[in-house]
Amino acid sequence: MDDAAVLTPPKDRDLIFTKDALVADIHFFANDPADLIARKAMRVNLSDLAAMGAEPLGYLLAIALPSDMENRDDWIEKFTAGLKRDQKEFGWSLFGGDTVSTNGPLTISVTAIGTVKQGDALLRGGACAGDDIYISGTLGDAALGLKCISGNITPRNQDLINRYHVPSPRLALGQKLKGIATAVMDVSDGLAGDIRHICASSGLGAEIAAELIPLSDAAGKVLESFPLYKDLIWSGGDDYELLFTAPSHVAGDIEKLAKTLDLSLTKIGRMTKGKAIGILDESGVNLLREGQGFRHF
Amino acid sequence: MDDAAVLTPPKDRDLIFTKDALVADIHFFANDPADLIARKAMRVNLSDLAAMGAEPLGYLLAIALPSDMENRDDWIEKFTAGLKRDQKEFGWSLFGGDTVSTNGPLTISVTAIGTVKQGDALLRGGACAGDDIYISGTLGDAALGLKCISGNITPRNQDLINRYHVPSPRLALGQKLKGIATAVMDVSDGLAGDIRHICASSGLGAEIAAELIPLSDAAGKVLESFPLYKDLIWSGGDDYELLFTAPSHVAGDIEKLAKTLDLSLTKIGRMTKGKAIGILDESGVNLLREGQGFRHF
Repeated sequence: MDDAAVLTPPKDRDLIFTKDALVADIHFFANDPADLIARKAMRVNLSDLAAMGAEPLGYLLAIALPSDMENRDDWIEKFTAGLKRDQKEFGWSLFGGDTVSTNGPLTISVTAIGTVKQGDALLRGGACAGDDIYISGTLGDAALGLKCISGNITPRNQDLINRYHVPSPRLALGQKLKGIATAVMDVSDGLAGDIRHICASSGLGAEIAAELIPLSDAAGKVLESFPLYKDLIWSGGDDYELLFTAPSHVAGDIEKLAKTLDLSLTKIGRMTKGKAIGILDESGVNLLREGQGFRHF
Repeated sequence: MDDAAVLTPPKDRDLIFTKDALVADIHFFANDPADLIARKAMRVNLSDLAAMGAEPLGYLLAIALPSDMENRDDWIEKFTAGLKRDQKEFGWSLFGGDTVSTNGPLTISVTAIGTVKQGDALLRGGACAGDDIYISGTLGDAALGLKCISGNITPRNQDLINRYHVPSPRLALGQKLKGIATAVMDVSDGLAGDIRHICASSGLGAEIAAELIPLSDAAGKVLESFPLYKDLIWSGGDDYELLFTAPSHVAGDIEKLAKTLDLSLTKIGRMTKGKAIGILDESGVNLLREGQGFRHF
């Protein structure tokens, strides 16, 4: 294979580029199954494309493999199987890449390339004061899954662990939000952190009602036994749901979209003038602590 | 900044993608000046674009910074200065990226994006038996520069060290080779290894005359004192010259091109039927050793 890939760009489409790096024992566990590491690396980048409203086209991959890695060939075979499975699932292909050795942890860097109709890329900076704030799916699952993996939550709940290992990039949703959403991003760092990005880009604040944040049945059940982990719902990352804002007059369109996609789209708050960001309990107390996204700019 | 970059592709151009990862103390020294690390990471990828005949458009960058790094802010500032300097020099821009922490060595991954006229990308697999083999510039400088850095060659020769730290991607040359060269690649791993790629892609062998390989004045002088390092001329990497094949009837065009670009383009051998690859001394003895690219397929 040539080191470089050649692409004739699709007509009348803009290209979207995203790049994410993942480091073992920071973004995933070195002993996670290799196929799941591959699929997560891919899906994290697909989620970035989803947040732009893009369709996946292809990706480039760089892997730094530890020089003392055991079962290197087996690992690569399993990793490749994970890549191929998700290439098929998302209809995109590997454009090229590079494999090198490292004396440090396994490190993966993916550059994802997607396309949107020219001028149709979604942005995160278009929210207006008064816009509703929506979230797709449910939040907190991946962070609670991580607590299951680390042994802090028992018994292990496999649904939650799966959400951590194999997130679902919301590509179909992202592709339908043009003309509906005013700002979009994917929740990778946690709701508290990611709403801050929308607020900063739009020059606004936000008020989110904690009791409106949608939970999965599994998360709801686990939190009954482990109420101390409740703030993971907004502070935990890795859910890769889409967080978006929209004016109230498109609420009906969003409801229809949720039905079409068979994906819950839940109104959890609204954008406000000023710069304050709050995740409020039923009595109006801000549950956000310093470092969880609450900040006066 | 949004995580993703949007690009309206230039009309009637193909896009070229390349990706290279660099790991500290494997591809560069962790204590190399940060601006030079940045420039090398960029130029290595620009060299891949040069070998495709492409013009640089933009790049994405992922950096994994050691979590215990001292003077992190200073380092980033200097690294960024290096990026900016070469962005200006090569007329391209940063499309986006990701910065993460690692418990391992500093790791840099660059995805470079270039453009060529549609259908005009150069490939490495089009050589024919009888084609001449050419190399741009001089070989061995970077490998000898590395020996200066490591203290194996004294006194340190700054010209050679500069060739190691700041290679010159041969973009102008690559852009002129369409219609002249039948196969092109950049010499990153060393002549012996890289001619093998052309041979494998073209299904041919090669005979190179060792005494025709062009040396810089600095390399020639150093090798007088350190003749044991002579095989670095073909086994050492990092020169990032272009290695290309061309039929003999375009020899005049290549001579003119060398004058136009003020860059030496030296005929060093020819492509042969069969699969044998040789770098021959004046009495016809093959100087390639096993592991230096000599192999019967």
